[in-house]
Amino acid sequence: MNREALMEATRRQMPERRWRHVLGVVATAEELAARFGGDREQVWLAALLHDYCKAWPVDRMETIIREQGLPAELLEYDKELWHAHVGAWAVREELGIRDEAVLDAIRYHTSGRENMTLLDKIVCLADYMEPGRDFPGVHKIRELANHSLEEALVAGFDSTISFLLEKGKTIFPLTVLARNDLIRTIEKRTQKS
Amino acid sequence: MNREALMEATRRQMPERRWRHVLGVVATAEELAARFGGDREQVWLAALLHDYCKAWPVDRMETIIREQGLPAELLEYDKELWHAHVGAWAVREELGIRDEAVLDAIRYHTSGRENMTLLDKIVCLADYMEPGRDFPGVHKIRELANHSLEEALVAGFDSTISFLLEKGKTIFPLTVLARNDLIRTIEKRTQKS
Repeated sequence: MNREALMEATRRQMPERRWRHVLGVVATAEELAARFGGDREQVWLAALLHDYCKAWPVDRMETIIREQGLPAELLEYDKELWHAHVGAWAVREELGIRDEAVLDAIRYHTSGRENMTLLDKIVCLADYMEPGRDFPGVHKIRELANHSLEEALVAGFDSTISFLLEKGKTIFPLTVLARNDLIRTIEKRTQKS
Repeated sequence: MNREALMEATRRQMPERRWRHVLGVVATAEELAARFGGDREQVWLAALLHDYCKAWPVDRMETIIREQGLPAELLEYDKELWHAHVGAWAVREELGIRDEAVLDAIRYHTSGRENMTLLDKIVCLADYMEPGRDFPGVHKIRELANHSLEEALVAGFDSTISFLLEKGKTIFPLTVLARNDLIRTIEKRTQKS
């Protein structure tokens, strides 16, 4: 599929408001790649497809998780996390995307993971800070993103964890592992310099 | 060892201020046991011994973790967590405590764990809310402890996690698993009633 066909296929999965968010993430991810590096084609593709099935009915996502062998643990956590794993599955099945790095960036764009790749970081951070986002702490995230992907991502995960604490919701353990790992990366870098 | 000998052996491990904290935890744990149940002898013992080696030099704790086969993962996290595991080891070695339920309550009194026992919960919560404690959120914890061990403990873990977020420190994953587990217990109870 060429770029236009991929865009059209993605746009058809979601309402207009979500599509505007996707375009914001694509633009922001491209800016971050220009600043920090990263393969432009992979960045564009993962950013475009990150929310591919975000607007799908919850029942459909649940069925796919159960029947396609996706991590069953997801079902014990917030539904917000499901679309990332289901999305990676869906773009492989429906659009023929085979690049595992792109699929991983889609799969972990909400939770993060340990040892995030540059591509993972760019997509996850762009999703936090694209121009349409407005939540407590987003300005700090955008500011940190001027000099450090890792510091900006920690601030992003901090905002997610704070929100979950406030709402009395469970916290997905992988997000804590991702944050711990980024903090250690930042500390090592500080010790060296 | 009788109670007096255990108290004397414990007192010798720490400065006066820490000993006052221990007595506060014993008194609070006994109050919680009177409210929510729990074996009085185990509660007394685990509360008395929970900070047995809190005042030991960090180097000594590190050596014990490395040489006695305690979880090496601890060394990657805050030193605050070390004394709990080292304490469980020490009271077994030095005082001959063999009750695994008491040792577990000491071992997990700082981090919590999944499937906390009644004894675990009482010691962990008493440590958060004994009369000498003063930190943001402690009043809420004491208030919740009037009717629910689990809700009070979630508030306790919330205060720990918030503190770590604010300080930019790593979060021990087991604490998140403990909190998630307690939230699910509370939700199930609410659904039933």
